[in-house]
Amino acid sequence: MKINKLVIATANAGKFREFHELAKDFVSEVIFAHEIAKLIVDETGKTYSENAMLKASAWAKISGLPCLADDSGLEVNALDGAPGLYSARIIHGPDNDKVSWLLESLRDKSDSERKARFAASLALCIPDDYMLICEGFCYGTIAHAPAGNNGFGYDPVFIPDGYNKTFAQLEPDIKNSLSHRNNAFRKIVNILNLSK
Amino acid sequence: MKINKLVIATANAGKFREFHELAKDFVSEVIFAHEIAKLIVDETGKTYSENAMLKASAWAKISGLPCLADDSGLEVNALDGAPGLYSARIIHGPDNDKVSWLLESLRDKSDSERKARFAASLALCIPDDYMLICEGFCYGTIAHAPAGNNGFGYDPVFIPDGYNKTFAQLEPDIKNSLSHRNNAFRKIVNILNLSK
Repeated sequence: MKINKLVIATANAGKFREFHELAKDFVSEVIFAHEIAKLIVDETGKTYSENAMLKASAWAKISGLPCLADDSGLEVNALDGAPGLYSARIIHGPDNDKVSWLLESLRDKSDSERKARFAASLALCIPDDYMLICEGFCYGTIAHAPAGNNGFGYDPVFIPDGYNKTFAQLEPDIKNSLSHRNNAFRKIVNILNLSK
Repeated sequence: MKINKLVIATANAGKFREFHELAKDFVSEVIFAHEIAKLIVDETGKTYSENAMLKASAWAKISGLPCLADDSGLEVNALDGAPGLYSARIIHGPDNDKVSWLLESLRDKSDSERKARFAASLALCIPDDYMLICEGFCYGTIAHAPAGNNGFGYDPVFIPDGYNKTFAQLEPDIKNSLSHRNNAFRKIVNILNLSK
């Protein structure tokens, strides 16, 4: 299957860059939704998939183009899977510092309790045609202190299994090859047999 | 892509028969969910797609197998798209007679007001892998009196465009080739390039 123009339905530039890297070999043009309109979609879903579908549908309606949205979260063993769906919405301290909140929450926790996974649900909406939803995961451990400047969100404290560096220390192409979003995106590519 | 076993996530034998006909050329084994378990899924969605996804997910969880669910409705011009999502839940008279309710609602309505469409949303859930949702439509007119014994639901009063017989009068294979469910199912077959 061929998709010529694909809108990445996010206002987050870091997320757009990541998806651009993932998608550029499979679609002719990758478009940042934020450059089409300043749309804010209420993420009222009860699951990652519901939120991803809400965003993909809303942008597909506005743009008339194929739209890819994701919702993702970090799920930590010691926190019974929190912050999960609310990963992006943790407000902590004067700087709204999610990473500090997480490290304080895990103070004195053992390595097994620091085990975590990033989960992503991707929704691809082809207007008036279909919606495809895939989930992907990346397993790892929460570091004791932040390290690295790449990526965004919880990347400075997430060490993927098999590595001894955080997502924020790893080269972007290595992180992309391991990430929950890549894992889900590859499923979409395979299911649709996507190529340029 | 190949799907060996496909569960049709419905307790409605008429719907199962229809999906069996649609699917049997593309999957090795078509299974009636009702023969696996007596599961009732609350259809609390606000759209056909949401209800279809609820059913497909619930059955996929129970069976561990690929599950196909649909939600569908009849949308009538003169009734501003009603009964729509509530098509199966109209309670009318001592016999719960949906068709009589519809004919009474349309008494004295013109042919253009009797224009209607069947809409279906199909959700295919492949456990721990993906969910694909497609919509399909079939356009027609509501007859002045019921006719025919095939099919189920509103079939005796729905005359598809281009024909002068109701769905319940047409041979099942002709109805199947025209139906909203077929339309949506063909999209799934094409997207996944399904074959036995």
